[in-house]
Amino acid sequence: MIIAKVIGNVVSTKKNEVLIGEKLLIVNPIKRKEENSWSLIEGENLIVAVDRVGAGIGETVLVVTGSTASKVIEHKNAPVDAAIIGIIDEIEIH
Amino acid sequence: MIIAKVIGNVVSTKKNEVLIGEKLLIVNPIKRKEENSWSLIEGENLIVAVDRVGAGIGETVLVVTGSTASKVIEHKNAPVDAAIIGIIDEIEIH
Amino acid sequence: MIIAKVIGNVVSTKKNEVLIGEKLLIVNPIKRKEENSWSLIEGENLIVAVDRVGAGIGETVLVVTGSTASKVIEHKNAPVDAAIIGIIDEIEIH
Amino acid sequence: MIIAKVIGNVVSTKKNEVLIGEKLLIVNPIKRKEENSWSLIEGENLIVAVDRVGAGIGETVLVVTGSTASKVIEHKNAPVDAAIIGIIDEIEIH
Amino acid sequence: MIIAKVIGNVVSTKKNEVLIGEKLLIVNPIKRKEENSWSLIEGENLIVAVDRVGAGIGETVLVVTGSTASKVIEHKNAPVDAAIIGIIDEIEIH
Repeated sequence: MIIAKVIGNVVSTKKNEVLIGEKLLIVNPIKRKEENSWSLIEGENLIVAVDRVGAGIGETVLVVTGSTASKVIEHKNAPVDAAIIGIIDEIEIH
Repeated sequence: MIIAKVIGNVVSTKKNEVLIGEKLLIVNPIKRKEENSWSLIEGENLIVAVDRVGAGIGETVLVVTGSTASKVIEHKNAPVDAAIIGIIDEIEIH
Repeated sequence: MIIAKVIGNVVSTKKNEVLIGEKLLIVNPIKRKEENSWSLIEGENLIVAVDRVGAGIGETVLVVTGSTASKVIEHKNAPVDAAIIGIIDEIEIH
Repeated sequence: MIIAKVIGNVVSTKKNEVLIGEKLLIVNPIKRKEENSWSLIEGENLIVAVDRVGAGIGETVLVVTGSTASKVIEHKNAPVDAAIIGIIDEIEIH
Repeated sequence: MIIAKVIGNVVSTKKNEVLIGEKLLIVNPIKRKEENSWSLIEGENLIVAVDRVGAGIGETVLVVTGSTASKVIEHKNAPVDAAIIGIIDEIEIH
């Protein structure tokens, strides 16, 4: 999983029916700068992820990518490759 | 999922039988330049995606990649790794 | 899926039994240079793909990567992550 | 699989229910500098992985990524894309 | 699939039980320099792969990555994302 920050959302009216009603958030992966300082990874790394844990803008989240991301949705044919699976309270680097 | 723009299509007569009749669009991932300005990512990033939502040339779309992309096709043996699953009306960055 | 050109093949006598008899072609992804000009992507991008559509050296093909590539083979335990699923007649960029 | 070093962990109270009770470690992939010298890969490569083998901070581990990582958890709907599957005693380069 | 060279192995005593007894080889992807000259790709590309075809150090092999790599192991819950599926006798570039 990767660590990312929620920075926005996507509005799509015409979409795959399994996605109707799903919250589609834009997350930006973050990287570690120094001991306990993290920053957004600039560039081409924006991901649109399904959110089922109630994440909000600005929160740091745990994002799963690839086919298992579709497991957060009950429907067995969910065409989803990214999902927010946790809101991160703390990142501990030792 | 990633955000991309539809820029073309592929014509293939001789192909895997599950793909017969499918619309194969070429999409170019986009990246955020400034607050609300987006541009095509140059280079090696073109993806050929199955379209089942009726996307047109020039539209901004939501693209799923990897094995769950094959879920947009009913056939259980679809050799597909990219699909357009939504037409994006608006991208909101906060 | 990605667009690539067939540039060679691999000979392997000792291999996983599901792959016996399969044609293993080397494909080189291509990128768009200008409007309708395409070139091989140099470097580290060679992929060995199973071919079931009868592609030949020099042809431009559609390549699926990841686990769904294994769907072109009937065997349910095919350890395959890339397959040629179509011969491209034309690439149309609008 | 990749070789990585455990450098920290993530605390998440609000998360997907399948992840409750799982240890979520932060691993940093390592690369080979010289014959038998390895160093952390700097930059954007931090991965959050589920640990079921009892790895500790500072240990060198084997990490599986992608959908099969979810197999370390008994639950069939685990939204997991990275897991520690072994503690490495020795890396032998010949 | 990718073309790689076997350069070493990993020793892990404490590991996922499905991996007990499996040979875990370190492979280094190779790239084409000139017509028929190949070299190791330097840097961060080392992969640990399960070997079931009896590959030895120094041999050029075909490596499958991603979830289908787990198909080389009979166990349905194998957390494996890379496997050697063939020993390459010859690479033919036309």
